[in-house]
Amino acid sequence: MENLADYIEHTLLKQDATEQDFIRLFNEAKEHRFYGVCVNPAYVKKAAAYLKGSGVKVVSVVGFPLGANLPEVKAFETKKAIVDGADEIDMVINVTNVKNQAWDDVLEDIETVKKVCADKALKVIIETDLLSKDEIEKVSILCIEAKADFVKTSTGFVKGGAGAKPEDVELIAKIVKPYGLRVKASGGIKDKEKALLLIKAGADRLGTSSGVRIIEN
Amino acid sequence: MENLADYIEHTLLKQDATEQDFIRLFNEAKEHRFYGVCVNPAYVKKAAAYLKGSGVKVVSVVGFPLGANLPEVKAFETKKAIVDGADEIDMVINVTNVKNQAWDDVLEDIETVKKVCADKALKVIIETDLLSKDEIEKVSILCIEAKADFVKTSTGFVKGGAGAKPEDVELIAKIVKPYGLRVKASGGIKDKEKALLLIKAGADRLGTSSGVRIIEN
Repeated sequence: MENLADYIEHTLLKQDATEQDFIRLFNEAKEHRFYGVCVNPAYVKKAAAYLKGSGVKVVSVVGFPLGANLPEVKAFETKKAIVDGADEIDMVINVTNVKNQAWDDVLEDIETVKKVCADKALKVIIETDLLSKDEIEKVSILCIEAKADFVKTSTGFVKGGAGAKPEDVELIAKIVKPYGLRVKASGGIKDKEKALLLIKAGADRLGTSSGVRIIEN
Repeated sequence: MENLADYIEHTLLKQDATEQDFIRLFNEAKEHRFYGVCVNPAYVKKAAAYLKGSGVKVVSVVGFPLGANLPEVKAFETKKAIVDGADEIDMVINVTNVKNQAWDDVLEDIETVKKVCADKALKVIIETDLLSKDEIEKVSILCIEAKADFVKTSTGFVKGGAGAKPEDVELIAKIVKPYGLRVKASGGIKDKEKALLLIKAGADRLGTSSGVRIIEN
Protein backbone atom coordinates (compact mmCIF):
# COMPACT_ATOMS: atom_id res chain seq x y z
CA MET A 1 0.00 0.00 0.00
CA GLU A 2 1.07 3.53 -0.71
CA ASN A 3 1.04 6.30 1.83
CA LEU A 4 -2.23 6.28 3.78
CA ALA A 5 -2.48 10.09 3.52
CA ASP A 6 -2.91 9.73 -0.26
CA TYR A 7 -6.26 8.03 0.36
CA ILE A 8 -7.72 10.62 2.67
CA GLU A 9 -10.25 13.32 1.85
CA HIS A 10 -10.21 15.37 5.02
CA THR A 11 -13.89 16.08 5.56
CA LEU A 12 -15.89 18.83 7.27
CA LEU A 13 -19.60 18.86 6.50
CA LYS A 14 -20.98 19.92 9.88
CA GLN A 15 -23.82 22.41 9.62
CA ASP A 16 -22.42 24.66 12.36
CA ALA A 17 -18.72 24.49 11.52
CA THR A 18 -16.96 27.82 12.07
CA GLU A 19 -14.34 29.70 10.09
CA GLN A 20 -11.74 28.41 12.56
CA ASP A 21 -12.86 24.83 12.00
CA PHE A 22 -12.32 25.27 8.25
CA ILE A 23 -8.92 26.90 8.66
CA ARG A 24 -7.84 24.03 10.91
CA LEU A 25 -9.09 21.53 8.32
CA PHE A 26 -7.15 23.23 5.52
CA ASN A 27 -3.96 23.48 7.57
CA GLU A 28 -4.13 19.84 8.65
CA ALA A 29 -4.68 18.76 5.06
CA LYS A 30 -1.59 20.69 3.96
CA GLU A 31 0.54 19.55 6.88
CA HIS A 32 -0.29 15.86 6.44
CA ARG A 33 -0.43 16.04 2.64
CA PHE A 34 -3.88 14.53 2.46
CA TYR A 35 -5.30 13.85 -0.97
CA GLY A 36 -7.95 16.53 -0.51
CA VAL A 37 -10.54 18.25 1.62
CA CYS A 38 -14.27 17.64 1.29
CA VAL A 39 -16.61 20.51 2.13
CA ASN A 40 -20.10 21.82 1.48
CA PRO A 41 -20.57 23.99 -1.64
CA ALA A 42 -20.70 27.28 0.29
CA TYR A 43 -17.06 26.77 1.40
CA VAL A 44 -15.48 25.61 -1.85
CA LYS A 45 -14.30 29.08 -2.82
CA LYS A 46 -12.59 29.58 0.53
CA ALA A 47 -11.01 26.12 0.37
CA ALA A 48 -9.71 26.68 -3.16
CA ALA A 49 -8.18 30.05 -2.24
CA TYR A 50 -6.59 28.72 0.92
CA LEU A 51 -5.21 25.56 -0.66
CA LYS A 52 -3.99 27.09 -3.91
CA GLY A 53 -0.61 25.69 -4.90
CA SER A 54 -0.58 23.18 -2.01
CA GLY A 55 -1.45 20.15 -4.11
CA VAL A 56 -4.41 19.40 -1.83
CA LYS A 57 -7.55 18.87 -3.94
CA VAL A 58 -10.90 20.50 -3.20
CA VAL A 59 -13.91 18.19 -3.21
CA SER A 60 -17.46 19.55 -3.06
CA VAL A 61 -20.57 17.62 -2.15
CA VAL A 62 -23.68 18.28 -4.24
CA GLY A 63 -27.36 17.65 -3.45
CA PHE A 64 -26.11 16.83 -0.01
CA PRO A 65 -27.08 14.94 2.09
CA LEU A 66 -30.62 13.97 1.01
CA GLY A 67 -30.19 13.91 -2.77
CA ALA A 68 -33.89 14.75 -3.12
CA ASN A 69 -33.25 17.77 -5.33
CA LEU A 70 -34.06 18.15 -9.01
CA PRO A 71 -31.32 16.93 -11.38
CA GLU A 72 -31.05 20.45 -12.89
CA VAL A 73 -30.43 21.88 -9.43
CA LYS A 74 -27.69 19.34 -8.75
CA ALA A 75 -26.16 20.23 -12.12
CA PHE A 76 -26.34 23.96 -11.39
CA GLU A 77 -24.76 23.43 -7.97
CA THR A 78 -22.01 21.39 -9.64
CA LYS A 79 -21.32 24.11 -12.21
CA LYS A 80 -21.02 26.74 -9.49
CA ALA A 81 -18.76 24.51 -7.38
CA ILE A 82 -16.42 23.99 -10.33
CA VAL A 83 -16.33 27.74 -11.04
CA ASP A 84 -15.50 28.25 -7.35
CA GLY A 85 -12.55 25.85 -7.65
CA ALA A 86 -13.80 22.32 -6.93
CA ASP A 87 -11.57 19.60 -8.38
CA GLU A 88 -14.03 16.78 -7.74
CA ILE A 89 -17.79 16.47 -7.18
CA ASP A 90 -19.52 14.07 -4.77
CA MET A 91 -23.22 13.97 -5.66
CA VAL A 92 -25.96 12.15 -3.77
CA ILE A 93 -28.39 9.97 -5.74
CA ASN A 94 -32.15 10.20 -5.29
CA VAL A 95 -32.86 7.23 -3.04
CA THR A 96 -36.62 7.46 -3.56
CA ASN A 97 -36.05 6.74 -7.25
CA VAL A 98 -34.13 3.61 -6.26
CA LYS A 99 -36.90 2.49 -3.91
CA ASN A 100 -39.43 3.05 -6.70
CA GLN A 101 -37.20 1.11 -9.12
CA ALA A 102 -37.31 4.18 -11.35
CA TRP A 103 -33.96 3.22 -12.85
CA ASP A 104 -34.18 5.61 -15.80
CA ASP A 105 -34.58 8.48 -13.34
CA VAL A 106 -31.61 7.32 -11.27
CA LEU A 107 -29.51 7.19 -14.43
CA GLU A 108 -30.73 10.55 -15.73
CA ASP A 109 -29.91 12.22 -12.41
CA ILE A 110 -26.32 11.00 -12.53
CA GLU A 111 -25.90 11.75 -16.24
CA THR A 112 -27.23 15.29 -15.80
CA VAL A 113 -24.52 16.02 -13.25
CA LYS A 114 -21.83 14.15 -15.21
CA LYS A 115 -22.50 16.35 -18.23
CA VAL A 116 -21.41 19.49 -16.36
CA CYS A 117 -18.45 17.82 -14.63
CA ALA A 118 -16.43 17.73 -17.87
CA ASP A 119 -12.92 16.67 -16.77
CA LYS A 120 -13.65 16.86 -13.04
CA ALA A 121 -14.06 13.51 -11.31
CA LEU A 122 -17.65 12.63 -10.37
CA LYS A 123 -18.30 10.47 -7.33
CA VAL A 124 -21.78 9.10 -6.85
CA ILE A 125 -22.91 8.69 -3.24
CA ILE A 126 -25.32 5.77 -3.23
CA GLU A 127 -26.10 5.73 0.53
CA THR A 128 -25.49 2.05 1.19
CA ASP A 129 -27.13 2.24 4.63
CA LEU A 130 -30.51 2.63 2.95
CA LEU A 131 -30.05 0.09 0.13
CA SER A 132 -30.36 -3.68 -0.14
CA LYS A 133 -27.52 -5.68 -1.70
CA ASP A 134 -29.55 -5.94 -4.90
CA GLU A 135 -30.07 -2.19 -4.97
CA ILE A 136 -26.35 -1.58 -4.37
CA GLU A 137 -25.56 -3.81 -7.34
CA LYS A 138 -28.13 -2.20 -9.59
CA VAL A 139 -27.05 1.37 -8.76
CA SER A 140 -23.37 0.46 -9.18
CA ILE A 141 -24.16 -0.73 -12.70
CA LEU A 142 -25.97 2.55 -13.40
CA CYS A 143 -22.87 4.44 -12.23
CA ILE A 144 -20.85 2.56 -14.83
CA GLU A 145 -23.46 3.36 -17.48
CA ALA A 146 -23.45 7.06 -16.55
CA LYS A 147 -19.63 7.14 -16.82
CA ALA A 148 -19.14 8.25 -13.24
CA ASP A 149 -15.59 8.09 -11.91
CA PHE A 150 -16.25 6.76 -8.42
CA VAL A 151 -18.98 5.06 -6.45
CA LYS A 152 -19.03 6.41 -2.89
CA THR A 153 -20.75 4.55 -0.09
CA SER A 154 -22.31 7.09 2.27
CA THR A 155 -23.12 10.63 3.25
CA GLY A 156 -22.50 9.92 6.93
CA PHE A 157 -25.81 11.65 7.71
CA VAL A 158 -28.18 8.66 7.96
CA LYS A 159 -29.54 8.47 11.52
CA GLY A 160 -28.17 5.31 13.09
CA GLY A 161 -26.38 4.43 9.86
CA ALA A 162 -23.16 2.38 9.91
CA GLY A 163 -21.58 4.25 7.00
CA ALA A 164 -18.88 2.45 5.00
CA LYS A 165 -18.86 -1.32 5.50
CA PRO A 166 -16.08 -3.51 4.07
CA GLU A 167 -18.59 -5.96 2.59
CA ASP A 168 -20.37 -3.15 0.71
CA VAL A 169 -17.07 -1.76 -0.57
CA GLU A 170 -16.10 -5.24 -1.73
CA LEU A 171 -19.40 -5.72 -3.55
CA ILE A 172 -19.20 -2.33 -5.28
CA ALA A 173 -15.52 -2.81 -6.18
CA LYS A 174 -16.20 -6.18 -7.76
CA ILE A 175 -18.83 -4.65 -10.02
CA VAL A 176 -17.28 -1.32 -11.01
CA LYS A 177 -13.52 -1.85 -11.06
CA PRO A 178 -13.50 -3.93 -14.24
CA TYR A 179 -14.95 -0.82 -15.90
CA GLY A 180 -12.28 1.52 -14.52
CA LEU A 181 -14.39 3.15 -11.82
CA ARG A 182 -12.99 3.54 -8.33
CA VAL A 183 -14.54 3.34 -4.86
CA LYS A 184 -14.69 5.93 -2.10
CA ALA A 185 -15.57 4.67 1.36
CA SER A 186 -17.07 7.23 3.71
CA GLY A 187 -19.07 7.47 6.90
CA GLY A 188 -18.01 6.16 10.31
CA ILE A 189 -14.28 5.82 9.48
CA LYS A 190 -12.77 6.79 12.82
CA ASP A 191 -9.54 4.80 13.17
CA LYS A 192 -6.67 3.24 11.27
CA GLU A 193 -7.95 -0.30 11.68
CA LYS A 194 -11.21 0.52 9.91
CA ALA A 195 -9.35 2.54 7.27
CA LEU A 196 -7.07 -0.39 6.44
CA LEU A 197 -9.99 -2.84 6.36
CA LEU A 198 -11.79 -0.65 3.83
CA ILE A 199 -8.72 -0.28 1.66
CA LYS A 200 -8.23 -4.03 1.76
CA ALA A 201 -11.86 -4.40 0.67
CA GLY A 202 -11.18 -2.21 -2.35
CA ALA A 203 -11.50 1.44 -1.31
CA ASP A 204 -9.35 3.83 -3.36
CA ARG A 205 -10.31 6.87 -1.35
CA LEU A 206 -11.49 7.45 2.23
CA GLY A 207 -13.80 10.26 3.28
CA THR A 208 -13.33 10.94 6.98
CA SER A 209 -13.18 13.70 9.54
CA SER A 210 -10.70 11.60 11.56
CA GLY A 211 -7.84 11.79 9.07
CA VAL A 212 -5.27 13.12 11.51
CA ARG A 213 -6.07 10.45 14.06
CA ILE A 214 -5.95 7.74 11.39
CA ILE A 215 -2.48 8.57 10.11
CA GLU A 216 -1.01 9.32 13.53
CA ASN A 217 -2.07 6.02 15.11
CA MET B 1 -58.24 28.37 18.61
CA GLU B 2 -59.36 27.49 15.13
CA ASN B 3 -59.29 23.98 13.73
CA LEU B 4 -55.97 22.27 14.54
CA ALA B 5 -55.76 20.86 10.99
CA ASP B 6 -55.42 24.42 9.67
CA TYR B 7 -52.03 24.64 11.40
CA ILE B 8 -50.56 21.44 10.05
CA GLU B 9 -48.07 21.06 7.21
CA HIS B 10 -48.07 17.31 6.74
CA THR B 11 -44.40 16.56 6.25
CA LEU B 12 -42.40 13.85 4.48
CA LEU B 13 -38.70 14.57 4.04
CA LYS B 14 -37.26 11.08 4.53
CA GLN B 15 -34.47 10.26 2.13
CA ASP B 16 -35.84 6.81 1.31
CA ALA B 17 -39.56 7.60 1.18
CA THR B 18 -41.35 5.63 -1.53
CA GLU B 19 -44.03 6.55 -4.05
CA GLN B 20 -46.58 4.85 -1.75
CA ASP B 21 -45.41 6.95 1.20
CA PHE B 22 -46.02 10.12 -0.81
CA ILE B 23 -49.45 9.00 -2.03
CA ARG B 24 -50.45 8.21 1.55
CA LEU B 25 -49.22 11.65 2.64
CA PHE B 26 -51.22 13.41 -0.06
CA ASN B 27 -54.39 11.41 0.67
CA GLU B 28 -54.15 12.02 4.40
CA ALA B 29 -53.65 15.73 3.81
CA LYS B 30 -56.79 15.84 1.66
CA GLU B 31 -58.85 13.68 3.99
CA HIS B 32 -57.98 15.69 7.10
CA ARG B 33 -57.91 19.03 5.29
CA PHE B 34 -54.44 19.89 6.51
CA TYR B 35 -53.08 23.31 5.59
CA GLY B 36 -50.46 21.76 3.34
CA VAL B 37 -47.85 19.12 2.66
CA CYS B 38 -44.12 19.73 3.00
CA VAL B 39 -41.79 17.74 0.72
CA ASN B 40 -38.33 17.81 -0.80
CA PRO B 41 -37.95 19.69 -4.13
CA ALA B 42 -37.83 16.52 -6.24
CA TYR B 43 -41.44 15.70 -5.22
CA VAL B 44 -43.06 19.11 -5.57
CA LYS B 45 -44.30 18.47 -9.09
CA LYS B 46 -45.96 15.20 -8.07
CA ALA B 47 -47.49 16.84 -4.98
CA ALA B 48 -48.88 19.75 -6.99
CA ALA B 49 -50.42 17.45 -9.59
CA TYR B 50 -51.94 15.16 -6.98
CA LEU B 51 -53.32 17.93 -4.80
CA LYS B 52 -54.61 20.19 -7.57
CA GLY B 53 -58.00 21.64 -6.67
CA SER B 54 -57.94 20.14 -3.17
CA GLY B 55 -57.08 23.35 -1.36
CA VAL B 56 -54.05 21.65 0.25
CA LYS B 57 -50.95 23.81 -0.25
CA VAL B 58 -47.61 22.49 -1.46
CA VAL B 59 -44.57 23.54 0.55
CA SER B 60 -41.03 22.85 -0.68
CA VAL B 61 -37.88 22.91 1.41
CA VAL B 62 -34.81 24.55 -0.16
CA GLY B 63 -31.12 24.15 0.69
CA PHE B 64 -32.29 21.40 2.95
CA PRO B 65 -31.26 20.33 5.53
CA LEU B 66 -27.73 21.77 5.87
CA GLY B 67 -28.23 25.20 4.30
CA ALA B 68 -24.55 25.18 3.32
CA ASN B 69 -25.27 25.87 -0.34
CA LEU B 70 -24.54 29.02 -2.32
CA PRO B 71 -27.31 31.66 -2.19
CA GLU B 72 -27.65 31.47 -6.00
CA VAL B 73 -28.22 27.74 -5.79
CA LYS B 74 -30.90 28.20 -3.15
CA ALA B 75 -32.51 30.83 -5.38
CA PHE B 76 -32.36 28.55 -8.42
CA GLU B 77 -33.87 25.68 -6.43
CA THR B 78 -36.64 28.04 -5.27
CA LYS B 79 -37.40 29.17 -8.81
CA LYS B 80 -37.69 25.57 -10.01
CA ALA B 81 -39.89 24.62 -7.04
CA ILE B 82 -42.27 27.47 -7.81
CA VAL B 83 -42.41 26.47 -11.49
CA ASP B 84 -43.18 22.91 -10.33
CA GLY B 85 -46.08 24.19 -8.24
CA ALA B 86 -44.79 25.09 -4.77
CA ASP B 87 -47.03 27.56 -2.92
CA GLU B 88 -44.51 28.23 -0.14
CA ILE B 89 -40.74 27.91 0.31
CA ASP B 90 -38.95 26.79 3.47
CA MET B 91 -35.26 27.69 3.11
CA VAL B 92 -32.46 26.81 5.53
CA ILE B 93 -30.04 29.55 6.58
CA ASN B 94 -26.28 29.09 6.49
CA VAL B 95 -25.49 28.37 10.14
CA THR B 96 -21.74 28.78 9.64
CA ASN B 97 -22.37 32.41 8.70
CA VAL B 98 -24.24 32.85 11.98
CA LYS B 99 -21.41 31.26 13.96
CA ASN B 100 -18.94 33.56 12.20
CA GLN B 101 -21.19 36.55 12.94
CA ALA B 102 -21.16 37.25 9.22
CA TRP B 103 -24.53 38.96 9.48
CA ASP B 104 -24.38 40.57 6.04
CA ASP B 105 -23.98 37.13 4.52
CA VAL B 106 -26.89 35.73 6.53
CA LEU B 107 -29.06 38.60 5.29
CA GLU B 108 -27.91 38.33 1.68
CA ASP B 109 -28.66 34.61 1.63
CA ILE B 110 -32.27 35.20 2.75
CA GLU B 111 -32.75 38.23 0.47
CA THR B 112 -31.45 36.30 -2.54
CA VAL B 113 -34.13 33.66 -2.05
CA LYS B 114 -36.83 36.20 -1.16
CA LYS B 115 -36.24 37.97 -4.46
CA VAL B 116 -37.32 34.91 -6.46
CA CYS B 117 -40.24 34.05 -4.15
CA ALA B 118 -42.33 36.96 -5.44
CA ASP B 119 -45.80 36.40 -3.94
CA LYS B 120 -45.01 32.96 -2.50
CA ALA B 121 -44.51 32.88 1.27
CA LEU B 122 -40.90 32.45 2.39
CA LYS B 123 -40.17 30.65 5.63
CA VAL B 124 -36.66 30.86 7.01
CA ILE B 125 -35.46 27.80 8.93
CA ILE B 126 -33.01 29.09 11.51
CA GLU B 127 -32.17 25.72 13.16
CA THR B 128 -32.70 26.72 16.78
CA ASP B 129 -31.01 23.56 18.08
CA LEU B 130 -27.67 24.94 16.92
CA LEU B 131 -28.15 28.57 18.00
CA SER B 132 -27.80 30.46 21.28
CA LYS B 133 -30.64 32.69 22.44
CA ASP B 134 -28.66 35.73 21.25
CA GLU B 135 -28.20 34.15 17.83
CA ILE B 136 -31.92 33.30 17.62
CA GLU B 137 -32.73 36.95 18.36
CA LYS B 138 -30.23 38.30 15.87
CA VAL B 139 -31.33 35.99 13.05
CA SER B 140 -35.02 36.73 13.75
CA ILE B 141 -34.27 40.42 13.28
CA LEU B 142 -32.51 39.65 9.99
CA CYS B 143 -35.62 37.73 8.84
CA ILE B 144 -37.67 40.89 9.45
CA GLU B 145 -35.11 42.94 7.54
CA ALA B 146 -35.15 40.49 4.61
CA LYS B 147 -38.97 40.67 4.51
CA ALA B 148 -39.40 36.95 5.07
CA ASP B 149 -42.93 35.78 5.85
CA PHE B 150 -42.20 33.22 8.54
CA VAL B 151 -39.40 32.22 10.88
CA LYS B 152 -39.30 28.42 11.21
CA THR B 153 -37.50 26.73 14.07
CA SER B 154 -35.93 23.52 12.78
CA THR B 155 -35.14 21.10 9.98
CA GLY B 156 -35.69 18.10 12.24
CA PHE B 157 -32.38 16.69 10.97
CA VAL B 158 -29.97 17.79 13.72
CA LYS B 159 -28.54 14.68 15.40
CA GLY B 160 -29.85 14.59 18.97
CA GLY B 161 -31.70 17.88 18.38
CA ALA B 162 -34.89 18.68 20.32
CA GLY B 163 -36.54 20.49 17.40
CA ALA B 164 -39.25 23.03 18.21
CA LYS B 165 -39.21 24.20 21.83
CA PRO B 166 -42.00 26.42 23.23
CA GLU B 167 -39.48 28.85 24.73
CA ASP B 168 -37.78 29.34 21.36
CA VAL B 169 -41.12 29.85 19.62
CA GLU B 170 -42.06 32.41 22.27
CA LEU B 171 -38.79 34.29 21.84
CA ILE B 172 -39.07 34.36 18.05
CA ALA B 173 -42.77 35.34 18.15
CA LYS B 174 -42.08 38.24 20.49
CA ILE B 175 -39.50 39.65 18.06
CA VAL B 176 -41.11 39.06 14.67
CA LYS B 177 -44.87 39.30 15.20
CA PRO B 178 -44.92 43.07 15.70
CA TYR B 179 -43.54 43.25 12.15
CA GLY B 180 -46.19 40.95 10.70
CA LEU B 181 -44.07 37.82 10.35
CA ARG B 182 -45.40 34.50 11.55
CA VAL B 183 -43.80 31.48 13.21
CA LYS B 184 -43.64 27.87 12.07
CA ALA B 185 -42.66 25.30 14.69
CA SER B 186 -41.14 22.08 13.37
CA GLY B 187 -39.08 19.14 14.51
CA GLY B 188 -40.07 16.63 17.18
CA ILE B 189 -43.80 17.48 17.19
CA LYS B 190 -45.26 14.04 17.81
CA ASP B 191 -48.47 14.54 19.82
CA LYS B 192 -51.35 16.89 20.44
CA GLU B 193 -50.02 18.08 23.79
CA LYS B 194 -46.80 19.36 22.21
CA ALA B 195 -48.73 20.84 19.29
CA LEU B 196 -50.99 22.83 21.61
CA LEU B 197 -48.05 24.01 23.73
CA LEU B 198 -46.32 25.35 20.63
CA ILE B 199 -49.46 27.12 19.41
CA LYS B 200 -49.88 28.65 22.83
CA ALA B 201 -46.26 29.83 22.62
CA GLY B 202 -47.02 31.60 19.35
CA ALA B 203 -46.74 29.08 16.51
CA ASP B 204 -48.95 29.86 13.52
CA ARG B 205 -48.00 26.73 11.63
CA LEU B 206 -46.75 23.26 12.64
CA GLY B 207 -44.44 21.13 10.52
CA THR B 208 -44.86 17.51 11.53
CA SER B 209 -44.99 13.99 10.15
CA SER B 210 -47.41 13.06 12.96
CA GLY B 211 -50.32 15.19 11.76
CA VAL B 212 -52.87 12.39 11.67
CA ARG B 213 -51.98 11.25 15.18
CA ILE B 214 -52.12 14.84 16.44
CA ILE B 215 -55.62 15.59 15.21
CA GLU B 216 -57.04 12.17 16.07
CA ASN B 217 -55.91 12.21 19.69
